[in-house]
Amino acid sequence: MTRSIILASGSETRKAMLQQAGVEFTSMLARIDEENIKASLVAEEATPRDIADTLAEFKARRVANKHTDALVIGSDQVLEFGREILSKPTSPEDAIAQLTKLSGKSHKLLSAVVIYQEAKPVWRTVGQVRLTMRVLSPDYIEGYVARNWDDIRHSVGSYQLEAEGARLFARVDGDYFTVLGMPLLDVLGFLTMSGAIDG
Amino acid sequence: MTRSIILASGSETRKAMLQQAGVEFTSMLARIDEENIKASLVAEEATPRDIADTLAEFKARRVANKHTDALVIGSDQVLEFGREILSKPTSPEDAIAQLTKLSGKSHKLLSAVVIYQEAKPVWRTVGQVRLTMRVLSPDYIEGYVARNWDDIRHSVGSYQLEAEGARLFARVDGDYFTVLGMPLLDVLGFLTMSGAIDG
Repeated sequence: MTRSIILASGSETRKAMLQQAGVEFTSMLARIDEENIKASLVAEEATPRDIADTLAEFKARRVANKHTDALVIGSDQVLEFGREILSKPTSPEDAIAQLTKLSGKSHKLLSAVVIYQEAKPVWRTVGQVRLTMRVLSPDYIEGYVARNWDDIRHSVGSYQLEAEGARLFARVDGDYFTVLGMPLLDVLGFLTMSGAIDG
Repeated sequence: MTRSIILASGSETRKAMLQQAGVEFTSMLARIDEENIKASLVAEEATPRDIADTLAEFKARRVANKHTDALVIGSDQVLEFGREILSKPTSPEDAIAQLTKLSGKSHKLLSAVVIYQEAKPVWRTVGQVRLTMRVLSPDYIEGYVARNWDDIRHSVGSYQLEAEGARLFARVDGDYFTVLGMPLLDVLGFLTMSGAIDG
């Protein structure tokens, strides 16, 4: 029997990735108290990698407990900048502050995936990418945020590489799909190996 | 004065990349005898890198000679598999043969860009990516080509990583945009430095 696939995420970008790859799935928003869990993990000095992995697991488990027959994919992304973690911007002003901070420097994006089956975690991975921004002019940052706020408000770090955000970067070292929020090739590899999709 | 930008390419994927990055440009198909030029270069044992660079230059020059006031972007992509060069598939059967050959192995994509200004080349680069395919079943290859022929017929190697083609790959080492046909971040960097776009 082929198991159904549930993406435990409301992210349009993650949905689009799986759709474009021709995977049949349903998506469900996993209601977890993300900001509080993250704050606790930061307080106990968890690494950015552990934070992404833990949040991905919370999301998958929340949905998997009610859908034990499906493969449930939980995913989360964390931005690491030096010893700091950046989240989604809370306002256009916050987005300008984030981009001003990242301008001319390198940061990392970590995208974790945890897959549950029969209410147990059966597979997990964390993808990691290093991104280096060009030195951006204050005028450009302001214009970029004004033009793109409706999209970047959902993105950690306040940019979307798949749109005008490509102009912010001098280099991207690592997997593109991990930048978008999920290490897609690894996920597809697992789904193929497990027989959930054809290969 | 801001120079206008012309993309000397009919490729929908390259157009989409520049459009998504918010670059204003026009596109023009550069009519060059691509297959004959490529055959001559292969005959004189040019490297895949030189072949991509030369074809990108031919395309840019053809358009730049008539539009000396603009920045003209020429681009070409070559697939290197061992000592062989693969082109766009000529038929669904050819696509099946190409994918069968690439299955379970690594190959390289080289995407060259040459930019002309006032009928002279002013900037050039060649991006390189290594891709490793999973071992694909004959049934899956056949179904993949049948489902995607209208799109993959325009792609060297018979796949599109940005669509169902993501399911063919175990690994992609290098820049995503280079896989799509143009090292976008480098191009945007040059356009910004030269003042053709804001930054």
